Amino acid sequence: MQAREPIPLEAIRAARERIAGSAVRTPLIRLAVDDAPAEIWLKLENLQPIGSFKVRGAGNAMALADPTLLARGVYTASAGNMAQGVAWHARRLGIPCTAVVLETAPETKLAAITRLGAEIVSIPFDDWWKVVVTHRYEPLADRYFIHPVSDLNVMAGNGTIGLEILEDLPDMDAVIVPYGGGGLSCGIASAVQALRPMVKVYASEVETGAPLAAALAAGTPTEASYEPSFVDGISSRSVLSEMWPLAKELLAGSLVVSLEETASAVRLLVERNHVVAEGAGATSVAAALKGGAGAGSVVCVVSGGNIDAAKLSKILSGQIP
Amino acid sequence: MQAREPIPLEAIRAARERIAGSAVRTPLIRLAVDDAPAEIWLKLENLQPIGSFKVRGAGNAMALADPTLLARGVYTASAGNMAQGVAWHARRLGIPCTAVVLETAPETKLAAITRLGAEIVSIPFDDWWKVVVTHRYEPLADRYFIHPVSDLNVMAGNGTIGLEILEDLPDMDAVIVPYGGGGLSCGIASAVQALRPMVKVYASEVETGAPLAAALAAGTPTEASYEPSFVDGISSRSVLSEMWPLAKELLAGSLVVSLEETASAVRLLVERNHVVAEGAGATSVAAALKGGAGAGSVVCVVSGGNIDAAKLSKILSGQIP
Repeated sequence: MQAREPIPLEAIRAARERIAGSAVRTPLIRLAVDDAPAEIWLKLENLQPIGSFKVRGAGNAMALADPTLLARGVYTASAGNMAQGVAWHARRLGIPCTAVVLETAPETKLAAITRLGAEIVSIPFDDWWKVVVTHRYEPLADRYFIHPVSDLNVMAGNGTIGLEILEDLPDMDAVIVPYGGGGLSCGIASAVQALRPMVKVYASEVETGAPLAAALAAGTPTEASYEPSFVDGISSRSVLSEMWPLAKELLAGSLVVSLEETASAVRLLVERNHVVAEGAGATSVAAALKGGAGAGSVVCVVSGGNIDAAKLSKILSGQIP
Repeated sequence: MQAREPIPLEAIRAARERIAGSAVRTPLIRLAVDDAPAEIWLKLENLQPIGSFKVRGAGNAMALADPTLLARGVYTASAGNMAQGVAWHARRLGIPCTAVVLETAPETKLAAITRLGAEIVSIPFDDWWKVVVTHRYEPLADRYFIHPVSDLNVMAGNGTIGLEILEDLPDMDAVIVPYGGGGLSCGIASAVQALRPMVKVYASEVETGAPLAAALAAGTPTEASYEPSFVDGISSRSVLSEMWPLAKELLAGSLVVSLEETASAVRLLVERNHVVAEGAGATSVAAALKGGAGAGSVVCVVSGGNIDAAKLSKILSGQIP
């Protein structure tokens, strides 16, 4: 189930039909800034039922899972958004769900998981990272595991975003995708490469933890410096090694932005386009506003909007970062 | 150009084709609250290029205006959002535009009008109300006037929202529409009455200024108490008398909400659905959450999202109201 080559277009197209009844076909709207360095468009995945794109991949993977195995229950390892995606579908299907989350996951995401009826297991970073790397959490080993990033069916679900963008804006020049584990960017890039290979797909990262940029600079996965911040949906010390070959092949580069630029993009999205992005989801917009993807027609994937109201309030009033 | 009977369906359908290239076909998404008293849906007009539905009516009216008259320039009387709608189209068409605004209009709306290249004339409430009632502002009498509410072509443009909702959710039971001047609710109700007469269309108002509720209670337009608040896009002392016959005929009633309920709806929309509504735009959601439109399938028109970041920050942190 590891990704060594791009997700086949047929798998992405099949995923699209499979999730049509549950995921929203999100709108692509123009960023309302006239003096931007590019023609910037926003793919609003924050409008999904669970507030992030994760509903797509989780839905596709669970639709393809053996129903007998699925009936025992599912679990995932997620800082929050993937857990919401899996929990949302588990509730819909009437099966038990457990989210193995980082003990630093924000309250709003935990509350949302609980509202969806899932159980939460909160563990320290090193243990959690082991689950992500080994695809297994021993106490839940009898359940069906859905990897938040590198599961091929999850990535195919993510790739449906690429199909929709290409339908709405076939003449685009570039796409910028927030890079957490790489499943979103590589899923989208698989679709884009198959249909419009001249379109560049960039990752966006935040400078307080940009392991893809570090790996690209070193030519191999390497340890990056990391500090927790309000950008809690992406950012870590290292890329997932199982994703590195694909990310290296499919992505045009990593555009690194600062916390200030990210907060400023969050404010801009609120004021000009009246949508709420979480920090991770705004890094793509921050990168486009810096001109990182050139001066053409640039689509920014606003991957999610799950941010505490109190935290957003502080960003809007300039107290964060 | 005054509205005495519903806008004909053909006029609304023609408006839809006319504005297809400029207005966004906005999404209808489910309010992410499981224990709500109804199945609540959100029609996201805050995602329009200018942050409100006004782009529809302004676009239709200007497309239908005599080009020779239009070339002299346009003006409107607007607390902000209609001015943005007219200015946005004027810039697109390359004609001068002036906005006659209330001197209390919020800074974010004035800044947006200025960014769109329009001039601003700021006048006191009584003078401004006279422009709204007489359809004329003497110093600009040589220009083409577009009434923000009762212009039939503006209302036909607003009615296109009704067509889209019915396409997406034909089985809905009710629609709730923020009531400012009545042009939005009566436009939508015209489309709905023609196609699905059993669907109820309600107005929503805020208790600090609810002239439609007062008029419906008295059986005739009457003076309502009024206090300015963060809900600056609707609310006044009296209904426009020229709109009263139509509003009385088409609307199922006025659902009045408090400032607290409205602020709470603004917060909920941010936290659960990751969109920003201005106060006016959230009154429909507040009304649905009170159960005002019954327990069926209820569509709330989120009419706009133009709110100062500082004000939104205060609402999110509980400092407003």
